[in-house]
Amino acid sequence: MAKYPQELTTLIAHMKKFPGVGTKTAERFAFHLLEWPESEIKNFSKHLFHLKEKITHCATCHCLAESTSCSFCADPHRNRSQLCIIASAKDAFSLEETGTYRGLYHVLGGLLSPIEGKTPEHLNLERLKKRVDEFEVKEIIIALDSTLEGDTTSLFLKDQIQSWGLNVFRLAFGLPMGSSLDFVDGGTLARAFTARQIF
Amino acid sequence: MAKYPQELTTLIAHMKKFPGVGTKTAERFAFHLLEWPESEIKNFSKHLFHLKEKITHCATCHCLAESTSCSFCADPHRNRSQLCIIASAKDAFSLEETGTYRGLYHVLGGLLSPIEGKTPEHLNLERLKKRVDEFEVKEIIIALDSTLEGDTTSLFLKDQIQSWGLNVFRLAFGLPMGSSLDFVDGGTLARAFTARQIF
Repeated sequence: MAKYPQELTTLIAHMKKFPGVGTKTAERFAFHLLEWPESEIKNFSKHLFHLKEKITHCATCHCLAESTSCSFCADPHRNRSQLCIIASAKDAFSLEETGTYRGLYHVLGGLLSPIEGKTPEHLNLERLKKRVDEFEVKEIIIALDSTLEGDTTSLFLKDQIQSWGLNVFRLAFGLPMGSSLDFVDGGTLARAFTARQIF
Repeated sequence: MAKYPQELTTLIAHMKKFPGVGTKTAERFAFHLLEWPESEIKNFSKHLFHLKEKITHCATCHCLAESTSCSFCADPHRNRSQLCIIASAKDAFSLEETGTYRGLYHVLGGLLSPIEGKTPEHLNLERLKKRVDEFEVKEIIIALDSTLEGDTTSLFLKDQIQSWGLNVFRLAFGLPMGSSLDFVDGGTLARAFTARQIF
């Protein structure tokens, strides 16, 4: 390990906290940052300092918000009887980009994972039940990852929600757009075949 | 483009300035940062704010320094008659890691590149001449990239320094350690062959 000045070592340590950033990349980032004009670094610094005060989580759905209510919950034109359950606040933006959904969101804040000690208590479920009762939700769409944790959580949620007497949907599985059958894995192909649609 | 809150968009814009970071990675970094504890973000922010005050460039060699003089120039045990010319301050740390060099450094601050408008005036050459005269430098080692810009700069420097009546060296070219002849490119192999050594 090279003997960098102490301040630089601290900077590299901060950079290494970002996902997928190892020592080499962190060093590259740090040296790049040293070449920024001082005003730009100060801007960045000030922005970070007030970040958590300016971006909070919506009290209702836990999406990102700039005030107590997020832009989705504050929008009177959105369909309040539809609720889409997502794992993290970022997923709402991905779904919004598709332009196909006009209901509200509910952020779980994670997925069930016994290995990481994530149990149902860690998910934002109590508030979900409250919202269902309060807003007369009729349709719940589960939009979680298609991974072991995602599937486990989806199954768990399905049982819970069905016990409240609601319709539960989940995202469809099938071929990704533009894919070639040669390169699609067997699991996906099997699910696409099982869920074949009238043409 | 998803409609992120304004503050988040600004954060993503800052993140995109790092080398090799595109929109997707910047978004990932930004959302990851939102999950850091507030105290950690504030620490990072404060660190950035004072960065340029705490890390400066050595007045003599332009290496990174925490005071007016860098750790190399301040070390009385280093050989002042040897000068290693490097393109950026980062290179000094890479060379230090090898533990083979005990002389001083001189940072050019870039390489000649007519396309990017980098001419000899942009390189830290005036101070080099002064140092050569002042410290009775006897040996100069050019340690620049083996690229078109690096080679151009090396050739230019060689002519300059030889006109001052000094010995100029440059890093050796040859096979990288642990390489297989099958995978070494023709140019490297040719240079390794030309520079063959008595065994």
